[in-house]
Amino acid sequence: MAPRSWLDIAADSHFSLANIPFGIITTPHSSSPHVGVAIGKYALDLSMFAAHSGFADCPAITSHLDVFSQPTLNDFAALGRAVHRDVRQYLQDFFVEGSKSRPAEAFAKPYDRRGLFPLKDVKTHLPFHIGDYTDFFVGKHHAQNAGALIRGIDNALNPNYMHLPVGYHGRASSVVVSGTSIRRPHGQIMEDLTAKVPKPIFTPSKRLDFELELGAFVCKANKMGEPVSIKEADENIFGLVLMNDWSARDIQGWEMVPLGPFNSKNFGTSVSAWVVLVDALEPFRVSGIENEHEALAYLREGKKENVYDLKLEVELTTKSGTSTTITRTNGKNLLFSFPQMLAHHTAGGCPMQVGDLLGSGTVSGTEPDTMSGSMLELSANGKNKIKLHGGDERTYLEDYDTVTLKGWAGGEEAGLVGFGDCTGMIEPAITIQ
Amino acid sequence: MAPRSWLDIAADSHFSLANIPFGIITTPHSSSPHVGVAIGKYALDLSMFAAHSGFADCPAITSHLDVFSQPTLNDFAALGRAVHRDVRQYLQDFFVEGSKSRPAEAFAKPYDRRGLFPLKDVKTHLPFHIGDYTDFFVGKHHAQNAGALIRGIDNALNPNYMHLPVGYHGRASSVVVSGTSIRRPHGQIMEDLTAKVPKPIFTPSKRLDFELELGAFVCKANKMGEPVSIKEADENIFGLVLMNDWSARDIQGWEMVPLGPFNSKNFGTSVSAWVVLVDALEPFRVSGIENEHEALAYLREGKKENVYDLKLEVELTTKSGTSTTITRTNGKNLLFSFPQMLAHHTAGGCPMQVGDLLGSGTVSGTEPDTMSGSMLELSANGKNKIKLHGGDERTYLEDYDTVTLKGWAGGEEAGLVGFGDCTGMIEPAITIQ
Repeated sequence: MAPRSWLDIAADSHFSLANIPFGIITTPHSSSPHVGVAIGKYALDLSMFAAHSGFADCPAITSHLDVFSQPTLNDFAALGRAVHRDVRQYLQDFFVEGSKSRPAEAFAKPYDRRGLFPLKDVKTHLPFHIGDYTDFFVGKHHAQNAGALIRGIDNALNPNYMHLPVGYHGRASSVVVSGTSIRRPHGQIMEDLTAKVPKPIFTPSKRLDFELELGAFVCKANKMGEPVSIKEADENIFGLVLMNDWSARDIQGWEMVPLGPFNSKNFGTSVSAWVVLVDALEPFRVSGIENEHEALAYLREGKKENVYDLKLEVELTTKSGTSTTITRTNGKNLLFSFPQMLAHHTAGGCPMQVGDLLGSGTVSGTEPDTMSGSMLELSANGKNKIKLHGGDERTYLEDYDTVTLKGWAGGEEAGLVGFGDCTGMIEPAITIQ
Repeated sequence: MAPRSWLDIAADSHFSLANIPFGIITTPHSSSPHVGVAIGKYALDLSMFAAHSGFADCPAITSHLDVFSQPTLNDFAALGRAVHRDVRQYLQDFFVEGSKSRPAEAFAKPYDRRGLFPLKDVKTHLPFHIGDYTDFFVGKHHAQNAGALIRGIDNALNPNYMHLPVGYHGRASSVVVSGTSIRRPHGQIMEDLTAKVPKPIFTPSKRLDFELELGAFVCKANKMGEPVSIKEADENIFGLVLMNDWSARDIQGWEMVPLGPFNSKNFGTSVSAWVVLVDALEPFRVSGIENEHEALAYLREGKKENVYDLKLEVELTTKSGTSTTITRTNGKNLLFSFPQMLAHHTAGGCPMQVGDLLGSGTVSGTEPDTMSGSMLELSANGKNKIKLHGGDERTYLEDYDTVTLKGWAGGEEAGLVGFGDCTGMIEPAITIQ
């Protein structure tokens, strides 16, 4: 039986005592963004908690309390994994039933006196200042599905695919926090890609898609010219989020050869507001997708359990408010781990900065009905209708559709370790004069 | 006859009175980076100039003098093109022979009393904080040359090439200022790309190349979801630099399908230290490469002269100190202009921030001997030897080679408008344990 909290935490809460995810919040008491953690139905305002000597018995952080007043998690993350571990453990001890470190009555109602705010009263913000954002493509089942739709089943995967974590540089400025609306992009589109004489048009995307991904934030910088070895890489990762790499398939199809996706992706990427520390995910390590090719030494991690058993779901809610879970999959469906992605990314000396974001690429599974992390796959590139509750159908996203990614590890007995929602609604395209 | 300065400016100086480029400097008097301009053999320290009431008669800037004490040009750039124009004009008036605005004897020797420092005593720094860096591919002759080497002459250009400025997101964290050494990257490489069973190895790049490009810095932000129209785009560009997009061709060949170049580029990108305002380049507008396809409305600029007549050269200096000019070309060899690149980049709503960097892609020409902005082209992908003075030869770069890009507009009569050098030396690869 897992330890219980003196706070009333529902069994299905993503923010159990086993989690303690970090985020950036504003509260009814403070309109300047600063650090908080989510616990049950509440956010604990760590800036206020620190100001009331909440961390008096946590030596790891006492000389760095200013990090909790910053508008991003960058400074806290930069303190390193050992500090994150201590702070998380300290907060778990604080919230556990019978905790000695809980000041008597400190958290009696009204909660906000010492920094506990109901989540519904708290606004969340982008958790990090992101210097650079990189999106990988290591969800092999997605690569296989998408490749088969584009190049046929025999050429689905490119020759390099099994040998390196394929990735590309994304657009950092358009990464937004869950809850931010996404405007349907205009773009240059060729409706018939096989036409002999291309006649592209400029029009709003008609094949707007989501991509269900995991994201990881970097907590340690490396200098230019100095790779992060695979041995060190795990310690350079702060935590994970859910990520929706919104994609305009029609823009993508025309633009992406030979330099990769560009405007088809850079109109918006959503991340969940609460960053789950990799320490909190440690109990959920599992093996990823089997790779028949032995990895080259710079990618050889030395442990098989290098990804996480995370239940993932995508819910589509129409304008009328009807919600349908349109896919279910698992975060273990990755060919390479985040430490491997980081070691590969820096292998030539590319400098990472604290707050850099790595995306996994779309996570799809293998079982029918539960295999698809995108509508490209669910609709077989527009050929099949996706049935929604209430009789609606979709091939791609319509205006005012809301996509909500959900993800969690663990069970109700020991407490869920979840991300909360990563959500975004499609706004209609602007009118071009 | 062009106006002369009371400062002694050599006829072949890139920093004539007609130029006034902006950069970030530290000087013998101040080790904290701040703003300066280059003029002849000197840098004028604008922070010091401002502190000595140098801008007393320049109303456009008097309430923003703090921008000159910043460690990047971002704040100055954000003031907008009208302010840049006024400040440049004011400094030109200040330096012109017989200037009334020159305080008597203010700049008598020793010059540094009021902020004039010999360039040899000044250290230059990266001019902008770069939020995102994007590299385009609009040097059509390079695209044609490189495409022919890879896919054969009939398929050199992809179907989209003439219709949109093809581009990809680059790595902002590895953009460095001229003078910074570049370490030869390790990477995953497939020596025989046609092998049936791929056996990639991890090794230092053997085909390390430069790419001669122009870069442009953005001076105006747009909100996510709100494109920059082609009409506005010109006002959103601050100025230009030379850019060397160092490239590891062997890493690139294996990694880039289907998502584009990644580790083959992200180990380093060099930019020249002095940013030439687009106002200074205005007299040198010329037509770019003819495009038989009419641009779609969102790319239609309404003027033919949308690129600049810039002489460009690449010099290779070996470890022994022998220098050879290995290519000469012209900056007008572009299919799309920077305003067109910006309009395309934001067409789907991608937000730009002040300081974002756009690269043109490699600029190659059409005449034999003067057509190649990279060694890939000069050596026909390693097949031909490039002859250097002193009997040396190259196909790709060797350790301790220094590549220097040079670029300028105008003639000695009216004064050169140049970038100075954009230089970098190749350091040997690190030893992997």
